[in-house]
Amino acid sequence: MSSLTLDAEALYRELLAGMRPLMTRYARPPLLVGVASGGVWLAQRLQADLGLSGQPGVLSSSMHRDDFSQRGLASGGTTQLPFDVNAADLIVVDDVLYTGRTIRAVLNELFDYGRPASVKLVVLVDRGGRELPVQPDLAVARVSLPASQSLELARDDAGQFSFKVQDK
Amino acid sequence: MSSLTLDAEALYRELLAGMRPLMTRYARPPLLVGVASGGVWLAQRLQADLGLSGQPGVLSSSMHRDDFSQRGLASGGTTQLPFDVNAADLIVVDDVLYTGRTIRAVLNELFDYGRPASVKLVVLVDRGGRELPVQPDLAVARVSLPASQSLELARDDAGQFSFKVQDK
Repeated sequence: MSSLTLDAEALYRELLAGMRPLMTRYARPPLLVGVASGGVWLAQRLQADLGLSGQPGVLSSSMHRDDFSQRGLASGGTTQLPFDVNAADLIVVDDVLYTGRTIRAVLNELFDYGRPASVKLVVLVDRGGRELPVQPDLAVARVSLPASQSLELARDDAGQFSFKVQDK
Repeated sequence: MSSLTLDAEALYRELLAGMRPLMTRYARPPLLVGVASGGVWLAQRLQADLGLSGQPGVLSSSMHRDDFSQRGLASGGTTQLPFDVNAADLIVVDDVLYTGRTIRAVLNELFDYGRPASVKLVVLVDRGGRELPVQPDLAVARVSLPASQSLELARDDAGQFSFKVQDK
């Protein structure tokens, strides 16, 4: 099996390029919300590079995950939404889309705060393996990985992105 | 504007034809679950035409809808799941996919009963207008309708399907 090499910085530039036409589809600028932790880093950089004012929201999937009993609150930080989600157009940003269970969880987390007008999903990498009928509106790369491996975004001290592939 | 004519019986035959290859992707037969009311009629007929034993499940979206405060329990019947959803492979069947809010609601309803291994979504008609990142695994027709009109499946006394288009 050949090893997987994903250039996270190159993919980020493609994501940014893909976001620009997406943003023009809105009458008013949508609000970015990152899924902790990789999605938050992406949302923060997109917020700056797209020239949006304010800070993106942060979504934690911890409280609504269907494996909460196994994982507890170990992963995923705390939800922080510095705006009213009611009637808002939101774009949820995540690093890797896999089964769709995290997205179900963060949608429920969002709806705990209000009823958005719309929620789109953009991800850096779609690794397939969907277990729920969730699809991104934008995914820059599609890769296939064995279920035994995890894939997530990492960020170094200089703010540069890379991908971390690990055996579970 | 030309009027919309959808031959529901012809679309049902296409749905059935599309279901056969989908079914072969599973190691064991998946369980069908219809969304009340049109999706239940479809699931019942698919259950028979695909030669599956037992009865399909019935999902009501009433309890989890994000407009529950406006609609109350007026629509959608009662959830009845004649099997254990834990670790099950499920196929949710609905007549029309629109904003995705009903699907979010019925997924939450399902997860109240347990943690399925997988959930796929098949629909007769995708009318676009998505407000959440939900996508069907199979949709037989894609149509565009003004937001002022509702579209839903009807069934006559002989069990024949038709589509009902109404001004809201």
